Amino acid sequence: MKPARGFPDSTFATRVALAQERMETAGIEALLLTTPADVAYVTGFLTRFWESPTRPWYVVVPATGAPIAVIPEIGVPLMARTWIEDIRSWPSPDYTDDGVTRLAGTLAEVVRAGGTIGVPSGHETHLRMPLADWRMLRDRLSDRVFSDDAGILRALRMVKSDAEIDKIRWAAGLPAGTFDRMDEIAAPGVALSEVFRSFEIACLRDGADRVPYLAGGAGPDGYEDVISPATDAALAAGDVLMLDTGAVWDGYFCDYDRNYVLGTPSRRVADAHRRLIDATQAGFDAARPGATPAELFAAMDFVLTGGHGTGAGRLGHGVGLSLTEPPSILPADHTPLVPGMVLSLEPVIETVPGRIMVHEEMIVITPDGADWITAPIGHDLLRLDG
Amino acid sequence: MKPARGFPDSTFATRVALAQERMETAGIEALLLTTPADVAYVTGFLTRFWESPTRPWYVVVPATGAPIAVIPEIGVPLMARTWIEDIRSWPSPDYTDDGVTRLAGTLAEVVRAGGTIGVPSGHETHLRMPLADWRMLRDRLSDRVFSDDAGILRALRMVKSDAEIDKIRWAAGLPAGTFDRMDEIAAPGVALSEVFRSFEIACLRDGADRVPYLAGGAGPDGYEDVISPATDAALAAGDVLMLDTGAVWDGYFCDYDRNYVLGTPSRRVADAHRRLIDATQAGFDAARPGATPAELFAAMDFVLTGGHGTGAGRLGHGVGLSLTEPPSILPADHTPLVPGMVLSLEPVIETVPGRIMVHEEMIVITPDGADWITAPIGHDLLRLDG
Repeated sequence: MKPARGFPDSTFATRVALAQERMETAGIEALLLTTPADVAYVTGFLTRFWESPTRPWYVVVPATGAPIAVIPEIGVPLMARTWIEDIRSWPSPDYTDDGVTRLAGTLAEVVRAGGTIGVPSGHETHLRMPLADWRMLRDRLSDRVFSDDAGILRALRMVKSDAEIDKIRWAAGLPAGTFDRMDEIAAPGVALSEVFRSFEIACLRDGADRVPYLAGGAGPDGYEDVISPATDAALAAGDVLMLDTGAVWDGYFCDYDRNYVLGTPSRRVADAHRRLIDATQAGFDAARPGATPAELFAAMDFVLTGGHGTGAGRLGHGVGLSLTEPPSILPADHTPLVPGMVLSLEPVIETVPGRIMVHEEMIVITPDGADWITAPIGHDLLRLDG
Repeated sequence: MKPARGFPDSTFATRVALAQERMETAGIEALLLTTPADVAYVTGFLTRFWESPTRPWYVVVPATGAPIAVIPEIGVPLMARTWIEDIRSWPSPDYTDDGVTRLAGTLAEVVRAGGTIGVPSGHETHLRMPLADWRMLRDRLSDRVFSDDAGILRALRMVKSDAEIDKIRWAAGLPAGTFDRMDEIAAPGVALSEVFRSFEIACLRDGADRVPYLAGGAGPDGYEDVISPATDAALAAGDVLMLDTGAVWDGYFCDYDRNYVLGTPSRRVADAHRRLIDATQAGFDAARPGATPAELFAAMDFVLTGGHGTGAGRLGHGVGLSLTEPPSILPADHTPLVPGMVLSLEPVIETVPGRIMVHEEMIVITPDGADWITAPIGHDLLRLDG
C-alpha cells in the first residue's frame, strides 16, 4: 500500500527527543545541522531547492524543545508547513552577513558560555556553509565550544522506523517494473545513453518523485566502473548491461541494480553473476541484530574471493534520506546491526582485468534476521533476447 | 546545432593557466577544490555519483602544471578519461584515513613550508569534506597557510567561453518545446504533481541529461513560494501556474520559468505579468559590459516598485555549472559585467499578501550589450484554454 507522505509531528518530536538524550550524555547543548538529509530528518523540510548552492540553511536543535530554523526568507513558507514553529530568517544572499548574526544569536540563546555546540564532522558528513562564515560564527561565539556531534545524527538516522522502511520499500518498488521490462528499452544497437534516458522516464512515470542517481555500464565482460555517465555507444549482442538506480519517494532513496545479458552469456559472465548472487545471499544470511558490517563483509568476501579480500572499498552501505549513508559493509565497520537498519548488499567481481560486474539488493534488519526490501533475483542472468 | 560533449584538453589547460596567473598575484601556491562544479571546471569530471555523500573528492591546482586528482579508487577509471594524468587514489571509505594523508602529501609536494593553500570560502561555496578531516589536514600541514581562494574560482567560472555558452543555450532549449506544449500537460483537474512529473519526463525525452531542479506553484493570484515540491492538489480554472526548471546538458544548467493562466486571467494577474515582462526587459536593457548587477537590480526594481526596493533577496543570478552561481542581481553586487557572463533575470511581484508571481529569462553579456539565451515571452500571460 502506498504510504502517506510526510510523518506526524510526533515522529519528529521523538527523533529530536532521542537526539536530546544523546546530547545530554555527550555534553552537547545544541546541534547545528546544515545538510539536506539532516535538516529533513528533524524538520521534514523537503525541497529540490538544495540544488542551488547559493544559500546556507541552518537548523539548531537545543537541549530541550523543538528545533529552531534559521533560514533564508525564500524558504519560510515551506518551513512554516512543517512542525517547526520557531523560524528565523533573513533576506539571503546578504553579502555583509548571510545569516551568521542570526545564527550566532540563536546559538547564544540556547547554549551557555562554555557550552558545547555539536556539528556533524565525521565520515560521510560535511558542513554546508561557506568556510568564511564558519570562521565568523566561531569568532562570534568564541566562548562556546564547537565539537563533533558525537555521531548522534549518524546513529539516529541509521535506524529506520517502520514508517521510514515503508517509504524506502515504496521507493524500491518504483524501478521494479522497469527492471522487469528492460526488453522494451534495451537491445543491440540502442545507445546506452538512450537506455538510461528511457529508464529514468519509466521510473518517473511509475511514480518516482525524482531519480537523482542513475549509473551503469555495458560491455562484453562487464563494465569498467559504476559511476560513469552513459555514453552514446550502442549496445552490442553479448554485452552485459547494468543499471544502478537511486529513485526517491518522499525524500527516501532506494539503491539497487540489475544486470542483463544481451543474448547468451559467456560462461565467465554467467559464473560471475552466479557468484554475485551467492555473495548477496551470504550477506543476507549473516545479517541479524548483533552482527556487524565487518561480518557481512567477511561472509560476502568469502564467496567472492575465498576470503582474500576484494579490492572494492566496501560491499554495501546504508540507504535512507541519502543514497548512501552509514554503516559501510567493510572490515573496519563494527557497528552492531539493530532492527530497522536498511542496507544495500553490493558485491563486486572482476571478470577480466579492468572489467567488473556488480550486483546490489536491499535488505532491512529485523528482530530475527533480515528481510529483503528488493525482490532478490536468481542465479541466472536476466536475458534480453529482443 | 547540438554542441559536442566535453571540451578539448586545451580548454581546461587555459582555465588552469588563468587560475594560476591569479594565484601568483594572490600569493597562493595551490588551490584545493572539493565540489562538483569546481572539480568539473578544471578537470571535466562529470558524474551523478556526487549524489553519494560518502566519499570526499579532492583536486589540487598547483602553481604550475596540470591539476592533481586525489580521489577514491572508485572514480579512477572515469577521471582517467579526462585530461588529468596525475591521479592519486585510496580505497574509500577508509575509517582510519579517508584520503587525508594522500591529500596532505600531495599539497606538501606543491606548496612550500610557509606557502598558502587557497580554498574557496566565500558566499555560495562550501567545503565538501568532513570537518574532522579538514582539521586533520590542517594539523598535518600546520606549517602551511590555509586561506580563501581569493575568489579565483568565482571570477573564472562567472565568465563563460563561447563553448560553454553554446552548452547553456542547448540546455535552455531543452524545456522550450515542453513550455510551448503545456496545454498537453496542464488543465483544470490535473494534480500539480502530475504536471511536474509530465514536464520532467518531457524534458528528458527532449534530450536533457537530467532535470535536477524543478519547482513551481499554482493558485488563483499566483503562488506562495517558488521552492516547494508540488502537491497533489488539482489545478483549477483561473489558476496561475508557474514552472521553473533547471535542466542539465553536459554539466551545464539552464534556469528559467514560464507562467500560465488556466482560462482568463484576472486583471490583477494580467497586470502583474505585464510588469514582470517590463522588468525583465529593463534588466536586459541595462545589461552591458561595465554595468553592474546592482544597476540591473535598480532598473528592474524601478519597474516593479517604482524604486522602493522589492522584498526579494535578489532579482536574478549567474547560471552555469551550478543552477545558481555568482553574481547576484542585488543592490550590494558591484561586479562589473563582462562579455560571457550568463545571467538569469528573475523579477518577482506580490500580487496579494502572501502570493507572488515570478518570471525568469536568461541572457548573456556581449561586447555590445546582451543577448537572450531564452526566447523571451511577451506581455500576455500564456493561456491554457484546454
